[in-house]
Amino acid sequence: MDAITLVPTNSLLTATPEEGRQLAIKMARLIIKVTQPDEQKRQQLRDVYAHDAIMLIAIGQTVATKFATIAAANHYWR
Amino acid sequence: MDAITLVPTNSLLTATPEEGRQLAIKMARLIIKVTQPDEQKRQQLRDVYAHDAIMLIAIGQTVATKFATIAAANHYWR
Amino acid sequence: MDAITLVPTNSLLTATPEEGRQLAIKMARLIIKVTQPDEQKRQQLRDVYAHDAIMLIAIGQTVATKFATIAAANHYWR
Amino acid sequence: MDAITLVPTNSLLTATPEEGRQLAIKMARLIIKVTQPDEQKRQQLRDVYAHDAIMLIAIGQTVATKFATIAAANHYWR
Amino acid sequence: MDAITLVPTNSLLTATPEEGRQLAIKMARLIIKVTQPDEQKRQQLRDVYAHDAIMLIAIGQTVATKFATIAAANHYWR
Amino acid sequence: MDAITLVPTNSLLTATPEEGRQLAIKMARLIIKVTQPDEQKRQQLRDVYAHDAIMLIAIGQTVATKFATIAAANHYWR
Repeated sequence: MDAITLVPTNSLLTATPEEGRQLAIKMARLIIKVTQPDEQKRQQLRDVYAHDAIMLIAIGQTVATKFATIAAANHYWR
Repeated sequence: MDAITLVPTNSLLTATPEEGRQLAIKMARLIIKVTQPDEQKRQQLRDVYAHDAIMLIAIGQTVATKFATIAAANHYWR
Repeated sequence: MDAITLVPTNSLLTATPEEGRQLAIKMARLIIKVTQPDEQKRQQLRDVYAHDAIMLIAIGQTVATKFATIAAANHYWR
Repeated sequence: MDAITLVPTNSLLTATPEEGRQLAIKMARLIIKVTQPDEQKRQQLRDVYAHDAIMLIAIGQTVATKFATIAAANHYWR
Repeated sequence: MDAITLVPTNSLLTATPEEGRQLAIKMARLIIKVTQPDEQKRQQLRDVYAHDAIMLIAIGQTVATKFATIAAANHYWR
Repeated sequence: MDAITLVPTNSLLTATPEEGRQLAIKMARLIIKVTQPDEQKRQQLRDVYAHDAIMLIAIGQTVATKFATIAAANHYWR
């Protein structure tokens, strides 16, 4: 398997929704890192994302799916 | 990590479904802001969204996913 | 925030699955209205949706996601 | 609202998984009918679906989402 | 309705996760069969899937959604 | 059915979130293997994924969906 850490603290539990959302973004980026380990190429692709409307929306979708899991794990920080 | 606040009040709890839906839209916009921090470029991309049928549908999808999480957090405001 | 009402009765609860599905469609349309407030442009885009196979499928997907939330809110009208 | 019935029996409950899946397909078709009420045009679009690989996959996705809701409603016919 | 069986054993329950995943794949294929009943055309489309990166990913997505439902039905084989 | 193993240990249970995420990636790859069993062709397609922004995002989405199921199976490793 890959040597890249996929879940930064090896836990889905966070103190707050804000931190949960940051974790969702990090996990989204780490999956991309596994598929494209070359830092320079990822940087080029990031420039593509940031200027393409449909990709920005698609990134929002994948972060939303990850966040749903993290929120459930944390009982929605109720 | 990014300095942008990702969850406005750092809570998924809202008084009403209407406010829950507003929160879903805000969170969708904040994820886009993290990926494209330049306000002027975001404005250009917003013009693209607003006139493209498939993008309007895609935005609806990502807001729906976020809203599902918020609604569960609020026990569906039952 | 936008002055557009996002959840018509400010509730996810409906008497029947049929009404739940109507609510899902309304909420899908209201999100599109927030992103594209111009009625005339939305009408043009509706003509695009209605004649494009992949968009019809995509609309079905976003309504399905909204309906999942509404159905859970209503304990599936069991 | 539309006069088209969106949930055939106004219930998500079915006797078996097979019937649940049939209901998911019917509901997917009814949403398309709401967006494109013209029978002849829908028939043309169906011909498009049936010969396009990505659309067949996309239809599978939307039926899967609807079926997830119906299955939960029926306690998975356990 | 279609004469094609949509849920092979008319049950979402399987002995193991492996069998659950096989069921998810079968159900995904059966939905495609309903939309495109012609075996020869489906074979042509399968050749398209197998050589197109985005379609392989999309198939993975729809199987994942079906598997989520089957896994819940089986209490995750815990 | 296919002779390819779809769930490596025939279990969704893992000791940690990190291992859960690795399992999600493996399961995503195994579904692709079922659809395209030829190793050489898969390698060619992997090169396509790794250099295409929208595909990287789409892979993230399908892994996120699988991980959601695995996380629920493991009670979110709480």
